[in-house]
Amino acid sequence: MIAEHRTLERRTRGNDHVVDLTHELQDLVSSTGVTTGQAALLVHGSTAALTTLEFEPGLVQHDVAAAMERLAPRNARYEHEQTWHDDNGHSHVRAALVGPSLSLPVVEGRIPLGTWQQVVLVDFDTRPRNRVIHVSVVGV
Amino acid sequence: MIAEHRTLERRTRGNDHVVDLTHELQDLVSSTGVTTGQAALLVHGSTAALTTLEFEPGLVQHDVAAAMERLAPRNARYEHEQTWHDDNGHSHVRAALVGPSLSLPVVEGRIPLGTWQQVVLVDFDTRPRNRVIHVSVVGV
Amino acid sequence: MIAEHRTLERRTRGNDHVVDLTHELQDLVSSTGVTTGQAALLVHGSTAALTTLEFEPGLVQHDVAAAMERLAPRNARYEHEQTWHDDNGHSHVRAALVGPSLSLPVVEGRIPLGTWQQVVLVDFDTRPRNRVIHVSVVGV
Repeated sequence: MIAEHRTLERRTRGNDHVVDLTHELQDLVSSTGVTTGQAALLVHGSTAALTTLEFEPGLVQHDVAAAMERLAPRNARYEHEQTWHDDNGHSHVRAALVGPSLSLPVVEGRIPLGTWQQVVLVDFDTRPRNRVIHVSVVGV
Repeated sequence: MIAEHRTLERRTRGNDHVVDLTHELQDLVSSTGVTTGQAALLVHGSTAALTTLEFEPGLVQHDVAAAMERLAPRNARYEHEQTWHDDNGHSHVRAALVGPSLSLPVVEGRIPLGTWQQVVLVDFDTRPRNRVIHVSVVGV
Repeated sequence: MIAEHRTLERRTRGNDHVVDLTHELQDLVSSTGVTTGQAALLVHGSTAALTTLEFEPGLVQHDVAAAMERLAPRNARYEHEQTWHDDNGHSHVRAALVGPSLSLPVVEGRIPLGTWQQVVLVDFDTRPRNRVIHVSVVGV
């Protein structure tokens, strides 16, 4: 039985920047030697989220951002901003609702994704950030 | 220690079709022999999602669809559609925001759900699909 | 290899009440003896959800509730309510979309969260509830 912890690190631009993690994640999983099991992913921080989508630079980012603008508009009034005098109240809300974690099966040493399905980080903060994603892989 | 991979397959109607996976999932978990552990679920593809809800055919489907229509309206303009000349831009956005995976505890050989809480697949695509859900069960 | 099941229990006020579970969860994980692995969390019931956010009593609760009101307004018409003559149709929809589960890495015996990132339960029901969160910890 194998249990390994690794991290992925990425520089983002913020402002709904969508970053494709798939290739690095598949390499990471492969390097653990687990053939059947699970990968638990958690992004560090409260203004970014993890999900899967069809990664098309620009396009998906635009469409996701438009939906997020309906849910938590950038210019709405946020108590968070009133208290801390910052500008990323919408970032916190968007990240909490999309969610910070993914639980992914490992099958024959890989995450079994669709051809047009990528594992992505979405950075909702209002400035560039260095992001760390914790990955724990457990299995045999 | 046990680590097993299985799949669930379901035919869906698309268009926010909600499919109850609970019974098959409980049988699947039971069949692995794991009594204490975790099940990681991932739907294959980028236009469907997994969650739990009180499954009432028609009713919940209507209420979830109405909320999704507020978040990502079917008739909004999607860059995805402009590029690919298809009609499922809203499906991609809805699926990414609800999320493709679940991480479920296994307790005494079962997923400990509420009486009115079912594990469901929501298919946001605009046509019937054959869906595959990967399930990895790890534990003792 | 260790696989342990525990529960967290909390009294909530309902109505988008956000409850910080971080401290109890870290203690729970520590008590299992797992140093490297994964924790799978699932809230029991279909009107509450789990996520992470920067926990600020009152503030985040207000901002999350405002976004949820855009997605699934309290006073919209819900088929669930028409059928069951209750008042929590919006609670069901909000909980399903935020999601009932989290998958969290365990690193050196702890969940590696950001300083301003807490694991929270959000109770969307319309009345106080006693909530149970199942936690399964697997690893070495």
